[in-house]
Amino acid sequence: MGYDKVDELAINTIRTLAVDATFKANSGHPGAPMGMAPVAHILFNKFMTFNPKNPDWLNRDRFVLSNGHGCMLQYAILHLFGYGVSMEDLKAFRQVDSICPGHPEAHDTPGIEVTTGPLGQGFSNAVGLAVAQAHTGAVFNKPGFDLCTNYTYCFFGDGCAMEGVASEAASAAGHLQLGNLICIWDDNHISIDGDTKCAFTEDVSKRFEAYGWHVQHVKDGDHDYEGIEAAIKKAQEVKDKPSMIQLTTTIGFGSKLQGTGGVHGNPLKEDDCKQVKEKFGFDPNKSFVVPQEVYDMYHKHASEGAAAEQEWNQLFEKYQSEHKELGADLKRRLTGKLQEGWQNKLPVYKTSDKAVGSRKLSEAVLEAIHDVVPELISGSADLTGSNNTRWKSAVDFQPKSTGIGEYSGRYMRYGVREHAMAAMMNGMSAYGTIIPAGGTFLNFVSYAAGAVRLSSLSHQRVIYIATHDSIGLGEDGPTHQPIETLAHFRALPNMMVWRPADGNETSAAYYVALTSQNTPSIMALTRQNLPQLEGSTIEHGIKGGYVLLENKDANITLVSTGSEVAICLEAAKYLKENNNLQARVVSMPCVEVFDAQSKDYRLSCIPDGIPAMSVEVMSTLGWEKYSHEQFGLNRFGASGPYLDVYKKFEFTPEGIAKRAAATVDFYKDVKPLRSPINRAFLQLI
Amino acid sequence: MGYDKVDELAINTIRTLAVDATFKANSGHPGAPMGMAPVAHILFNKFMTFNPKNPDWLNRDRFVLSNGHGCMLQYAILHLFGYGVSMEDLKAFRQVDSICPGHPEAHDTPGIEVTTGPLGQGFSNAVGLAVAQAHTGAVFNKPGFDLCTNYTYCFFGDGCAMEGVASEAASAAGHLQLGNLICIWDDNHISIDGDTKCAFTEDVSKRFEAYGWHVQHVKDGDHDYEGIEAAIKKAQEVKDKPSMIQLTTTIGFGSKLQGTGGVHGNPLKEDDCKQVKEKFGFDPNKSFVVPQEVYDMYHKHASEGAAAEQEWNQLFEKYQSEHKELGADLKRRLTGKLQEGWQNKLPVYKTSDKAVGSRKLSEAVLEAIHDVVPELISGSADLTGSNNTRWKSAVDFQPKSTGIGEYSGRYMRYGVREHAMAAMMNGMSAYGTIIPAGGTFLNFVSYAAGAVRLSSLSHQRVIYIATHDSIGLGEDGPTHQPIETLAHFRALPNMMVWRPADGNETSAAYYVALTSQNTPSIMALTRQNLPQLEGSTIEHGIKGGYVLLENKDANITLVSTGSEVAICLEAAKYLKENNNLQARVVSMPCVEVFDAQSKDYRLSCIPDGIPAMSVEVMSTLGWEKYSHEQFGLNRFGASGPYLDVYKKFEFTPEGIAKRAAATVDFYKDVKPLRSPINRAFLQLI
Ligand SMILES: [Ca+2]
Ligand SMILES: [Ca+2]
Repeated sequence: MGYDKVDELAINTIRTLAVDATFKANSGHPGAPMGMAPVAHILFNKFMTFNPKNPDWLNRDRFVLSNGHGCMLQYAILHLFGYGVSMEDLKAFRQVDSICPGHPEAHDTPGIEVTTGPLGQGFSNAVGLAVAQAHTGAVFNKPGFDLCTNYTYCFFGDGCAMEGVASEAASAAGHLQLGNLICIWDDNHISIDGDTKCAFTEDVSKRFEAYGWHVQHVKDGDHDYEGIEAAIKKAQEVKDKPSMIQLTTTIGFGSKLQGTGGVHGNPLKEDDCKQVKEKFGFDPNKSFVVPQEVYDMYHKHASEGAAAEQEWNQLFEKYQSEHKELGADLKRRLTGKLQEGWQNKLPVYKTSDKAVGSRKLSEAVLEAIHDVVPELISGSADLTGSNNTRWKSAVDFQPKSTGIGEYSGRYMRYGVREHAMAAMMNGMSAYGTIIPAGGTFLNFVSYAAGAVRLSSLSHQRVIYIATHDSIGLGEDGPTHQPIETLAHFRALPNMMVWRPADGNETSAAYYVALTSQNTPSIMALTRQNLPQLEGSTIEHGIKGGYVLLENKDANITLVSTGSEVAICLEAAKYLKENNNLQARVVSMPCVEVFDAQSKDYRLSCIPDGIPAMSVEVMSTLGWEKYSHEQFGLNRFGASGPYLDVYKKFEFTPEGIAKRAAATVDFYKDVKPLRSPINRAFLQLI
Repeated sequence: MGYDKVDELAINTIRTLAVDATFKANSGHPGAPMGMAPVAHILFNKFMTFNPKNPDWLNRDRFVLSNGHGCMLQYAILHLFGYGVSMEDLKAFRQVDSICPGHPEAHDTPGIEVTTGPLGQGFSNAVGLAVAQAHTGAVFNKPGFDLCTNYTYCFFGDGCAMEGVASEAASAAGHLQLGNLICIWDDNHISIDGDTKCAFTEDVSKRFEAYGWHVQHVKDGDHDYEGIEAAIKKAQEVKDKPSMIQLTTTIGFGSKLQGTGGVHGNPLKEDDCKQVKEKFGFDPNKSFVVPQEVYDMYHKHASEGAAAEQEWNQLFEKYQSEHKELGADLKRRLTGKLQEGWQNKLPVYKTSDKAVGSRKLSEAVLEAIHDVVPELISGSADLTGSNNTRWKSAVDFQPKSTGIGEYSGRYMRYGVREHAMAAMMNGMSAYGTIIPAGGTFLNFVSYAAGAVRLSSLSHQRVIYIATHDSIGLGEDGPTHQPIETLAHFRALPNMMVWRPADGNETSAAYYVALTSQNTPSIMALTRQNLPQLEGSTIEHGIKGGYVLLENKDANITLVSTGSEVAICLEAAKYLKENNNLQARVVSMPCVEVFDAQSKDYRLSCIPDGIPAMSVEVMSTLGWEKYSHEQFGLNRFGASGPYLDVYKKFEFTPEGIAKRAAATVDFYKDVKPLRSPINRAFLQLI
């Protein structure tokens, strides 16, 4: 312990950097960095181990700024320690193409673990990072080889504390007894609407106790450096509970407006900037100043981190010779690549194989590959038996004291917490040794939309196993039947939405999902049985779309997905017999992957000269991109046995044929009839 | 107090009806109805006042089954009391077009207050119903005229207790001290994954205490009828806190599988059905049996409710003569119609009026109309100053003891709880005397997607004030910039997505939103300033889309929304000067309302013969419906000053003109070039 003038100077350097960067950008949030500078200084220097020269070192301590709007705190610290964030970068805060964007983005800035800003997400990511550490340690640590021992630290504000996703994640973390997780609540009584007393008067600490957390309170977070240090130390010592430290601070500490909403989301006025600098002993006329002794102090700790990594690297070398298989496995995992030959385990189907729901086909994939993809961690938001997410021999990820699993287990019981599941999976994926897959009904992936968006934005290889994908779920009715969901996630950049039509396409979906290191996937899967289709292969499926039924004399192309593909094949027969029309059928399990194919290939699927009609039993929105006409369901569904529901909405061979015939007729006079694949200009993607 | 054989018989009648209906449907959830039959019997008969012949009576007690999968409990009770749910309806449980769908839907079934099933929603709706009662009572009750005094009761299960939306709503309810709200937790230790100990071991009661709730525990919910009654009575007496009763029950009480996950979501086997009936003294070979004495008991209570309404009607008559203005206002509100002439207060703009962000234009509407639309309750999820949701004279809806508002106040401080805000607004709207409007950033409406979907499905007139609607928000960056959001909600049936281009269109958006009694609206509003456009009028705007700039010699139609409309006008000039091309411009503030116009009108906006190009600075998904080519942003945005960001992605007159010229060129050889308004067949809507 013991804090001297250099500590004080360092803390105030962080504060003035935040003041200067937000002032220069004329945008941003100085309040949180100024209030949390002391705890950040203490945490990073006294507790955290990391090497700024290698931000990817596995056993680094993880830090998450859940109140991401305070990111100048983090950028300042990354700069001071010598991460790849220069003074010029700080000066470009919130400018186009800067690596210091308005909220922390993991893929823009070295040293940022997860992308935060949307409130509650970072906190929940931290729970996922802690799960990943607990699992990775349980799998790989051996006597004498404490390879994976890091803590996860998280700062969060009142906003995060109010968000439901964080409540869900906190409840899960308490249940899971994550002793490696230490979260510090910036209790500054201010949110955007002003004093938190206008909306947020609950007893937060008591709530965390109710979740099973270890809770402490540091009452003067502005000055009590020893108290902060002691609380973090105590939190580290508690091994069977996550820790929450209520840290009462003054937002915008040092500003004339400190302690008010005025410093939350607006830069300080020029005179206030000067006043702050004078108060802290800085030259009021200079900006972006870092005293050399502060650099020295931070660089010294950075060197200690580099040495620690060095030591760890030697340990890992030794580990690889003493625990060959595990060592090789861990080394491989860190590259992001799967075991060689794993894909040979993917189930392959013949048309004679029985009809089965794609949720069961997904289960068959998990059953077949779980041994060869040991980094795959499955789970469900309390729908295990419905999502079919659990392979038979799976062990639950649970604290041993529960008697129903252990941390080396690979099956997560997320509880009815879809949003936290998604946000935790983002954290688990960000850890670097795990590929998380989590199940819920497709309709309730929407509950998780905030986190699903961040899976995409932050390039996490996360798999959403989304069963009960349409009105085909039947009796549960409109409250559970997705209509808008696929359109929503197809509109989300960097998300693969899969809706396989049979077993081979399901295997293809998993192949692409697991080998796409920077893209999350949603698997939209049926409850009802689907036949194994002639012409469907894994090789076809991985193109995202392909010709399932070719016909040189076709009058129309039917483009369809999932459960409707087989009905389209029936419709093609019906058209021939009843309308004297020839149809080709394209199966399109994933439009995003199809879009990535060559234009020639795409035109071979949806050619010029004949009209195309899409068939998917939900919103038609977006299908215009692949078809001239669209048959879908732009209304809510109905509760009833699924065949009755399909019939009600005419998703039958007759219903499809009727519309196909109308389409052929409608386009017969248009010359040239171009494929919708042909565009006047390229999209910005 | 005192419970006799008829009570027992009634409870077991509810249980056997649930057993029979789920068995006949071969689908559904018998467990919760069997476990909660005692508390339902007691609550409805001993505490609740309602008239089954008029389910719309204002002062009825409200009941919400948040664990909506247990809906056979509610259908059975509605039937027994004589609501419009016949025995035939019960027998058609979960069949197509039945009024007893798989989960309770307010608009299908008399006596269902809100649509539930998606977990956590009903609980949060109940908080909204309680807010609405507190407000309506505070506004209309006068000495001697207790017009509005009802309680809101809610049953919820473990699943609801785990959902973040319910956590948010519970925290808000505690803050708001809603003494009129009584929620009963079906503590049966079972969720779909089996024993709740696998994921849910927090201390729920302690958590609710932390939120500021009054908490009780009834340990034997299966048998302790007196205990149940005493707890509800006590809860009614607590006036300054919402009440939570932990009711420990046995799921599937009576079944051979009682107390296990086996009775949660599957009908009982045939032998178990018989066994249950024998155990309860029913003929094992008969189904759907209601003993006459049970009907008699329930009908007697129904008559008491009818008499209570009769008495209330007389009181309300008297009120209308003694408090003429208030009486007339309440009577009007119950019709769902707004005050005559209210729309004359809507702001109207001239082109000489200054450029201003549409969030400010929205504020101007609220400022102008709040007096003439007294049922409008605004609010924000902690972004009041950014969403501009508060008119100057607004009073907060707060308990008086906080000293910062009162229940008659019309401004809600929802806290950083977007999902609960939306779900509470659904409940507030369902109450019948309020039109709720709530603000957040457009990007974070996605956090509320689960509840927003139910606004649409259950026909609630709710307004989402969604500011910072695009990359135009600038510096906050990609974490806050919507790309997929409008596509998502445009794909959602029965939702109006508005993106006004200027002041008159903003007024038009509010006009349609407020007068559409059964449809929710999202107002996508800018942070950046927008000029007042020549040709924009309220009359035009309420058509959803209209020709802003006509040109008989046009080579192309530009179709655009919001902030891009003015840039399209510039692009039209640019095209003329630089490309020798003529452009017309269509402003399309709301595609759903445009879709409702006649085909002739729509074709007059987007005519045959020339190509149309859409311009909107986010996902192009769905714009193919209104254009031949689409200029949008199918990737994530960037952090920077907004004009720099627009320039980076070429949303400039030049960038638009370049693509427009390519579009004209691309389509010059296509004959006939049809408007996308022309379709081969009609969609299912
Ligand atoms: Ca705060
Ligand atoms: Ca339960």
